[in-house]
Amino acid sequence: MAEPLASPQIDRLIQMLARLPGLGPRSARKAALHLIKRRELLMAPLAEALQAVMAAVVKCSRCGSLDTLDPCGICRDPKREPGLLVVVEDVGDVWALERAGVIKGRYLVLGGALSPLDGVRPEDLNLALLEQRLVEGEVREVLLALNATVEGQATAHYVSELIARRADGPTVSRLAHGVPIGGELDYLDEGTLAAAVKARRSF
Amino acid sequence: MAEPLASPQIDRLIQMLARLPGLGPRSARKAALHLIKRRELLMAPLAEALQAVMAAVVKCSRCGSLDTLDPCGICRDPKREPGLLVVVEDVGDVWALERAGVIKGRYLVLGGALSPLDGVRPEDLNLALLEQRLVEGEVREVLLALNATVEGQATAHYVSELIARRADGPTVSRLAHGVPIGGELDYLDEGTLAAAVKARRSF
Repeated sequence: MAEPLASPQIDRLIQMLARLPGLGPRSARKAALHLIKRRELLMAPLAEALQAVMAAVVKCSRCGSLDTLDPCGICRDPKREPGLLVVVEDVGDVWALERAGVIKGRYLVLGGALSPLDGVRPEDLNLALLEQRLVEGEVREVLLALNATVEGQATAHYVSELIARRADGPTVSRLAHGVPIGGELDYLDEGTLAAAVKARRSF
Repeated sequence: MAEPLASPQIDRLIQMLARLPGLGPRSARKAALHLIKRRELLMAPLAEALQAVMAAVVKCSRCGSLDTLDPCGICRDPKREPGLLVVVEDVGDVWALERAGVIKGRYLVLGGALSPLDGVRPEDLNLALLEQRLVEGEVREVLLALNATVEGQATAHYVSELIARRADGPTVSRLAHGVPIGGELDYLDEGTLAAAVKARRSF
């Protein structure tokens, strides 16, 4: 059947929903139908939420994160330690760390990780923003909170070498490796177990 | 942290996305970030697609399906056999059968299946629309294309008894059970295998 299923409008909505991560063509159809059946409760509020984000959300020119303000709320927050800069790959990582509520410093969002395979080179990352923060001279420690993937670790090395080149640069730290809280040893890979044993602590 | 993660607008968008079937809180955050990063390519078109559907799509007053016209394109299509009425639970089932391109007749969307547990009673289904089609007298066969679930089969029984009560009512048929095309016997349940053996055909 070359003709559209129901109406071109519904087909277009399904097409757009199918481009979201986590939704395939089948689940996009389900989601479209779910929305149409809940016009007032869900479809209209979702359309408004999209418009509101498009109208209000901007990228922070200091850290690369997203907010309605520029600089963002975290960069403006006077209670954050100016000495600690946490380098992350993506805005989602800022959200994850903020949910954990453990970072007293501010962030620098690289916007990705180095990956020769995917064509991500150093000039594609927000390294100029990082440079600017180092030049300002307030940062005493850079915490590399990058993914424990090949790309994340390659990026960590690249950034740490950039910083090491500076005379009087900040110290560089990374997140600890080990057993996730609630994790079962049986399900963990050998690399994680080896790291957890190597970094064992007195009980 | 009681305060919002990034901005109330982003939080609201994540909240709305998390209400879609197939997206949990985690994948809703990923989807929101994906949208924000693709403002022109995805977020604006999705917002427009939602508005277009809200402005244009209506429920067909003859069959209960969705289209921009009322009666819908299928109900208006003069090439459809007026004698065959295919009863389905949901609009998604109409789409599935139309994708297969095997139905020469028209549809009747019940809008659900009987389920005492979920509180779905006969008066919650579009049985008045079905009644109307039967009264018109053109329908010679009703194909019950309902899900092969307990609820779908209970609904099939209920509808078939409704029809049997009519003097000179249409014949009632149901979809065949059997091995799905491409299916491996090893993965099929006993009920399906039993049905496939019972309904075996000469080779």
